[in-house]
Amino acid sequence: MTGDSAAMVAGVTKKTELLVRQLVLPVEEQHGGNAHDLPDDVRRALQTAARTAGVFAPQVGAAFGGLGLNMRDRAPVFEASGYSLFGPVAQNCAAPDEGNMHLMERLASPDQQLRYLVPLAAGRIRSCFAMTEPMPGNGFDPSALHTTAEKTSYGWVINGRKWFVTGADGSAFAIVVARTSGEPDSRSGATMFLVDAGSPGLRVQHDRGAHRTTTFARESELIFENLEVSDDMVLGEVDRGFDYAQTRLWNTRLTNCMRWLGSARRAADIAVARAANPSSSGDRLGDLGMVQHLIADNEIDIAASRGLVERACLLLDAGEPSAQATAIAKTFVAEAVGRVVDRSLQICSAPGNTEDAPLSWLYREVRLFRVDDGPLETQRWAIARRALRAADGRVS
Amino acid sequence: MTGDSAAMVAGVTKKTELLVRQLVLPVEEQHGGNAHDLPDDVRRALQTAARTAGVFAPQVGAAFGGLGLNMRDRAPVFEASGYSLFGPVAQNCAAPDEGNMHLMERLASPDQQLRYLVPLAAGRIRSCFAMTEPMPGNGFDPSALHTTAEKTSYGWVINGRKWFVTGADGSAFAIVVARTSGEPDSRSGATMFLVDAGSPGLRVQHDRGAHRTTTFARESELIFENLEVSDDMVLGEVDRGFDYAQTRLWNTRLTNCMRWLGSARRAADIAVARAANPSSSGDRLGDLGMVQHLIADNEIDIAASRGLVERACLLLDAGEPSAQATAIAKTFVAEAVGRVVDRSLQICSAPGNTEDAPLSWLYREVRLFRVDDGPLETQRWAIARRALRAADGRVS
Amino acid sequence: MTGDSAAMVAGVTKKTELLVRQLVLPVEEQHGGNAHDLPDDVRRALQTAARTAGVFAPQVGAAFGGLGLNMRDRAPVFEASGYSLFGPVAQNCAAPDEGNMHLMERLASPDQQLRYLVPLAAGRIRSCFAMTEPMPGNGFDPSALHTTAEKTSYGWVINGRKWFVTGADGSAFAIVVARTSGEPDSRSGATMFLVDAGSPGLRVQHDRGAHRTTTFARESELIFENLEVSDDMVLGEVDRGFDYAQTRLWNTRLTNCMRWLGSARRAADIAVARAANPSSSGDRLGDLGMVQHLIADNEIDIAASRGLVERACLLLDAGEPSAQATAIAKTFVAEAVGRVVDRSLQICSAPGNTEDAPLSWLYREVRLFRVDDGPLETQRWAIARRALRAADGRVS
Amino acid sequence: MTGDSAAMVAGVTKKTELLVRQLVLPVEEQHGGNAHDLPDDVRRALQTAARTAGVFAPQVGAAFGGLGLNMRDRAPVFEASGYSLFGPVAQNCAAPDEGNMHLMERLASPDQQLRYLVPLAAGRIRSCFAMTEPMPGNGFDPSALHTTAEKTSYGWVINGRKWFVTGADGSAFAIVVARTSGEPDSRSGATMFLVDAGSPGLRVQHDRGAHRTTTFARESELIFENLEVSDDMVLGEVDRGFDYAQTRLWNTRLTNCMRWLGSARRAADIAVARAANPSSSGDRLGDLGMVQHLIADNEIDIAASRGLVERACLLLDAGEPSAQATAIAKTFVAEAVGRVVDRSLQICSAPGNTEDAPLSWLYREVRLFRVDDGPLETQRWAIARRALRAADGRVS
Repeated sequence: MTGDSAAMVAGVTKKTELLVRQLVLPVEEQHGGNAHDLPDDVRRALQTAARTAGVFAPQVGAAFGGLGLNMRDRAPVFEASGYSLFGPVAQNCAAPDEGNMHLMERLASPDQQLRYLVPLAAGRIRSCFAMTEPMPGNGFDPSALHTTAEKTSYGWVINGRKWFVTGADGSAFAIVVARTSGEPDSRSGATMFLVDAGSPGLRVQHDRGAHRTTTFARESELIFENLEVSDDMVLGEVDRGFDYAQTRLWNTRLTNCMRWLGSARRAADIAVARAANPSSSGDRLGDLGMVQHLIADNEIDIAASRGLVERACLLLDAGEPSAQATAIAKTFVAEAVGRVVDRSLQICSAPGNTEDAPLSWLYREVRLFRVDDGPLETQRWAIARRALRAADGRVS
Repeated sequence: MTGDSAAMVAGVTKKTELLVRQLVLPVEEQHGGNAHDLPDDVRRALQTAARTAGVFAPQVGAAFGGLGLNMRDRAPVFEASGYSLFGPVAQNCAAPDEGNMHLMERLASPDQQLRYLVPLAAGRIRSCFAMTEPMPGNGFDPSALHTTAEKTSYGWVINGRKWFVTGADGSAFAIVVARTSGEPDSRSGATMFLVDAGSPGLRVQHDRGAHRTTTFARESELIFENLEVSDDMVLGEVDRGFDYAQTRLWNTRLTNCMRWLGSARRAADIAVARAANPSSSGDRLGDLGMVQHLIADNEIDIAASRGLVERACLLLDAGEPSAQATAIAKTFVAEAVGRVVDRSLQICSAPGNTEDAPLSWLYREVRLFRVDDGPLETQRWAIARRALRAADGRVS
Repeated sequence: MTGDSAAMVAGVTKKTELLVRQLVLPVEEQHGGNAHDLPDDVRRALQTAARTAGVFAPQVGAAFGGLGLNMRDRAPVFEASGYSLFGPVAQNCAAPDEGNMHLMERLASPDQQLRYLVPLAAGRIRSCFAMTEPMPGNGFDPSALHTTAEKTSYGWVINGRKWFVTGADGSAFAIVVARTSGEPDSRSGATMFLVDAGSPGLRVQHDRGAHRTTTFARESELIFENLEVSDDMVLGEVDRGFDYAQTRLWNTRLTNCMRWLGSARRAADIAVARAANPSSSGDRLGDLGMVQHLIADNEIDIAASRGLVERACLLLDAGEPSAQATAIAKTFVAEAVGRVVDRSLQICSAPGNTEDAPLSWLYREVRLFRVDDGPLETQRWAIARRALRAADGRVS
Repeated sequence: MTGDSAAMVAGVTKKTELLVRQLVLPVEEQHGGNAHDLPDDVRRALQTAARTAGVFAPQVGAAFGGLGLNMRDRAPVFEASGYSLFGPVAQNCAAPDEGNMHLMERLASPDQQLRYLVPLAAGRIRSCFAMTEPMPGNGFDPSALHTTAEKTSYGWVINGRKWFVTGADGSAFAIVVARTSGEPDSRSGATMFLVDAGSPGLRVQHDRGAHRTTTFARESELIFENLEVSDDMVLGEVDRGFDYAQTRLWNTRLTNCMRWLGSARRAADIAVARAANPSSSGDRLGDLGMVQHLIADNEIDIAASRGLVERACLLLDAGEPSAQATAIAKTFVAEAVGRVVDRSLQICSAPGNTEDAPLSWLYREVRLFRVDDGPLETQRWAIARRALRAADGRVS
C-alpha cells in the first residue's frame, strides 16, 4: 500500500465512522435494530447520506459507481461500517448483496451487468444468494446439491429447494446454484443462474421461525417447481458453479469478519464506557481487576482478529492461495467476536442486558456467525487436513 | 438419606419427569416459551396436573400442602422440573415465589402465613421480591440500600425505588426490603415488609426494555411514594433484613442452579438426539470426533454441576456454614449451564438456531444466570476473600 | 455413611494431614521431590510413622493390616496423603501398589495372598503392573495386546514387550497381562500372571528417557523372552484379564484423582499463602482482582473435582454401573488439577518458578495425569458414545 | 516493504530454516537441550556456520557486521531461528545479548561501542542485563528500584542486589540499572551502567534453584557492594534509564515473541508429524476429529500470533506509539505458545512426553514466557488502562 492509498483509505474510514456515529446509529435506535424491516425510504435516505459522504459502495469498481477498494483496503472501512448493523445497508456493502456484486463484477456478461449489477450497485434493488439446501445428511457437506437444472431446447428447467436464503424477501433477483451434471454429492457439475423474483415456478416461504433467533437475518425458503430460465441467465460458465461459490465464499468470509469486527468493537466500546463511568462515590467498574481482565481480553481479541483478516486479505489481493488463511481468519474471528460481546455483556451485567439494548441484539446476532457458512467444526477439519497434507509432503 | 427417603425422592423425580414430558412440554411449545404471559387458566390446569401427579410444591412443608423436601432431596426434583421453563410453574416452585415461600415458612407470623403463605403455597396467588435498586454506584454492593422505611405512630412509611423486580406484574403482594436504620451503605439496618399490590403510594412500571432481552423474566420497577404499612406487615424482626436476605439468597442460589440444570439437561438432550440421528446415507453427526468432544463436555459440565449443588445442599440441610459452597456452586453452574447450551447450539448449527426453537430461547435465558444476583465477578471476589482469610488464619 | 463412620474418616483424614505436614513434607524437601529414588531406610521410617499415627494402608482390608476404607471414605484420606508426593509412599497407598493390592484382595488365591499380598500390604516389598505395550497403531486401543502366554504341560510361556511400567525398578513382582486366546486386537482372551523379579526370561530396561519428563514416575520397559510361569501364578481366572484390568482401572482412576487432588490443594495453598503475604508497603497480591480470579477458580476446580470423585465412589461402593461416572471424574479432575497448578504458578510468577520448587515439580508431574491411562480424548470418546447410546435407547 | 526487501527477507528466512534443520537441531539433540551449558567451541562452530550461511546477527546494523533487518523483517527470521532453542545462539540473536545490542547501537558512545558492542555483535563475548530486583512488595512494579548509584568525584558507587539475571554466568559485562535520583518507587531517576565481569564489589550467585525449573534459562543473582564505576561507563544519559529500559522492553517483547513462535511451530510440527504417521493398520491419529481440533487450533494460534507481532513491528519501525500493540502481542503470544506446546504434548500423549524429548523441554521452557517480564496480569492491567483512558477521552 503506497502512502497515497493509505491516506485515502484512512480518509474513507474516518468518514465512515462519522457517518455511522452521526446518522446511522440514531436510525438504528429508532428502528429497534432490525435492518431487514427497514422502510425503503429510510434505507434510501441512509444511502444518500453515504453517497454524499463519499463512502458509498466502497468495494464496488469505479465503473459501477463505487470506490474500488481491494480486500485489504476495505477491511477498516467495513469494520467502521459494521459498527452499526445498519452501516453496511447505508453503504451498500451488506450481505448478501456485497458478495453478489463481487461475483457479478467478475462473471456477469455485459448485458447481465447492465440489467442486474448496475441497479444493485446503485442500491436501487436488492438480491439474494440461494445455495444451501435442507440437509438430508449431516449438514457438513456443501457438495450435497440436490436442486437440478436440466437443459432444454430453450434454456433450463430448475427443480429443488433452498433454505436459509438471507434477504430473499424484497429481492429483485436471486443467484441460484443448481446441479447441471454429476451425482447429488459430486464436487463438480454445479451452475449459477440468475432468477428474477416473481418468476413462474418460484415460490418463497418466509420466516420459518427465523424471527425467534434474530431480528436481523430474515431468512426464507425458496422452492423451484419447473422454473424455466433462458440460457442468458447462466452466470459465468456452465458446470463451474462450485468454483465460483468457493471464490465468493473466500471473499464473503473475510467481509463478514470485517463487518462483525465492527459489532465487536461496538460492544467493547459500550462496555468500556460503562466501566469508565464513575459512580456517585467516584468508584469505577474499570478500577476492578476482574473487569480490567475482561476489557484487556476484548482488546486482544479485536487486535488478533484484525491481524488475521489483514493477512488473509493480502493473500487474496495478491492472488495467492488463501484457503487456509481465510479458514483460519473465519474460525478465530467468529469465536473472538462472540467472546467480545459476551464479555461486554458481563461487564454491563443485568442493566446492560436490558437498557443498553444493542448488547442484547448483538449477543443473539453474533451467535450466528459461528454456524453461518457451515459450523466452525468444518473449518477446523479443513485447517487440520491442510496441515496434515503439508506434513505428508515433508515426509515423502 | 435413608433408603426410604431415597426411594421417595426417586419416585417424585420420576413423576416430575413424566409430568414435564407428557403435559408441560406440549403447553410450552404452544405458548412460545413465555411463562410470564401464560393465561391464568392454563397455569391452573398445569398446577392441577402436578397436584394430581403428587408433585405439587415439593419444597413446601406438609402443613402448607407441599412435600417438605429438604434441599438435597429437592435437587433432582427441581432439575426434572426445570427441563421445561414451565415445569416450575406447574409445580409451584418457580422463582421468585419459591424463595418467598422459603422465607415465609421460617419468618412469617401465623396471621401472615394464613393471609399470604397459604394462598401462595396453594398456587392461588403470585408474589415478588423487591430488593435490588437502581445503582448509583458500580452495582457490586447489595448493601447500597437507599429505600427507607420511617417509623410513625401507626406503622411505617416507605419511600424509594426498586428495579429488576421479577414477576411483579400480576403479583398479589411483594416482599420489600427497606432501610430502617443506619447509613445508605451500612451492612445492617434493613427490614422486610409485606406490601399488598394496589396499595396507595405504590407505583409499578413494567417492562423497562426487558422484553428485548428475554421473553420469560418479565421484570418491573417499583416506586414507593409515602407508602404506609402497619406494624404487622413487618416480616420477621426489624433491622434483620440483611440476614434474612442472605438466608433467602443461599437458598435461591441453589434452587436456581437446580432449575437451570434442567435447562442444561434439555439442551444437551436436544443436541444428542440431533447427533444420534442418522442421515439418509447413514452418517451421524455423533460419529464425528469434534461433535463427540462437545457432547462429552456437556455431560461433564452437568455432572460436575450436580456434584457441587449436592455438596452445598448437604451443608445447608445440616445447618453448617455454606456461604463458600453456595458461591462456588452458583459460579460454576451458571457458567457450565451457559457452556452446555452454547455447545448444544453449535452441534445443531444453523437449523438448530431456528427450528429447534427451545435452544434459541434457552440461549438467551441462561445468559441472565451469569448476572442475575450480582455478576459472577462478585462471587469470585467473595470466594477468593474467604480462601485468603483461611490462609491468614494458618499464618497467625 | 453413618455418623460413626463419618467421624472415623474425619479422624483418619486429620491424622493424615498432620503426618504429611509434620513429617512427610520435610523429607520431601530434603530429597528433592523424587519419591522413586527414596532410600529404603527413609521409606521405611515414613511407613513406621504412618503406622504409629494409625493411618497406614487405609485402603487395605483389616485382614491384611489396613483400615479397610471403602472408596468414598478413602477419598479425603488419599487427598490429604497426596498433599505431598511422598505421602502415599508413607501410607502405602501409592500407585501402582495400591491398584495391585486392590486386585489381589479380590482375586488372589490364599497362597498368592500369603506370598505376595501380605508383604505388599505391609510395605515390605513393592510391585508393578505391566499392561501397556509399545503401540504399533495409534495408541488409543487398550485391546491391542500382543504379548502372549502359551499353555504348556507345566504352565505358561510368556513372550512380548511392555512399556511405561511405573516403578518396575525395585519391585519384587509384576502383574503381567498377556494374551491367552483370541487375535491381537480382540477384546477378550487376556490373562493376568504374577511374575517374580529376576525370573529367567525377564529383562528390564530402565528409564527410557523418562527422567527428562519427570523425576517421580520412574518408568521402565519389560521384555519377556520365553519366560516360564507355573499355573499357580495365574491371577484370577484364565481369559478374564480384560475384565480384571477394567475393574482395576475404575478403581485406580478414582484413587489417582484423589491423590492428584492433594497436589492441586497443595499448589493452591502455596499460591494463596503467597497472595496473602503483605509486602513492606502492606499491599498484597491477594487484593488484586485478577489474582482473586485465579484464586477463586482454583477453589471452584477443587470443589467440583471432589464432587465428581465422591459421586463416582458412591456408585462404585454400591456396585452400580460406574464407567460413565469414573470417566467423567477422570477427565474433569485431570484437567482441573492441571489448571490449578498452572494458575498457582501464575500467581507466584517468576519467583514461584524457582524458589517455591514444589510448584515446578508439580507442574511437570500433573501434566502426565492428562495422558496416563490413555489420553483424555479416549475418555471423551467413551463418554459421548454412552450419551449417544442412551439417546438411541430413547428413540427406539 | 518493497519487492526487493521482501525477497531478501524470504531468502534469509529460507537460509535460516536450512541452517537450523541441518546443523543446529543435531547439535541440540546431542547436548540435551541446554543452550547455556553449551561448550564454547560448539557455540563458535555454530556461529561460524551461521556466518557462512549469511544469516549471522540479522538484527545488527551493517556497521557492526550484521544484516540490519528492521523489526518487521526480522520477525520471520527470528521465528525460523527459534525453531531450535540453539538457533538464536548460532545466529547471535539470543536473549539477553540481542536486547543489549539493540540498546548499545542506539545509546553507546563510540568508545563504548568499540569496547563492548563490536565483540558482542561478533559473538566473541556474551553479556547480561541486570534490572529486576528481589521484590519487597508484590512484584508488579518495575519502578521499585532499590539499587543505588551515588555520584562521587571520580564516578559512581553502586550498591544493591539484582536477581533473575539471565546468562550472567560467562558474561563479559552487564548492563546494570541503578537509581541515581528520586525515591525508591518513583518512576524516574534511573541510570544504566556498563559493569565489567570481575569488577571488585561485584558478586555473582548462580543458579538459585533455577535449574529445577528449566535447563535453559540459567539465572543468577548479582550483588553490588560499593562497586565503583567511572563516568564513561554510563550508558546514554544520566537519569534516563527507565526510558531506555522501556525502549529495550518494547523491542525484546517482540523479539521474544518471534523466537517463542519458533518453539510453537516446532511443537506443532512434531505433533502433526506424529498425527500424520499411519499405524500398521493404516489408521492415523490425524483422522480423529478431536486430534484435528487440536491441530487446527495450533495453526490458528500461530497465525494469530504472527499477525499481532507483525502489526506491532510495523508501528515500532514507523516510530509510532506501540506500547498497546506490544503489550497485546506479548500477552496473546505468550499464552498461545503455551497452548500450542500443551496441545502438541496431548497429541503425542505419553510417548511424546518421553521419547520426543523436545516437547518435554519446550513444555517447561515456554511456561516461563508467561511470567518473564512481569506476569501477564500486569500487561492486561496496562492494556485495560489504556482502553479506559481512550474512553475518558471520548467522554470529555
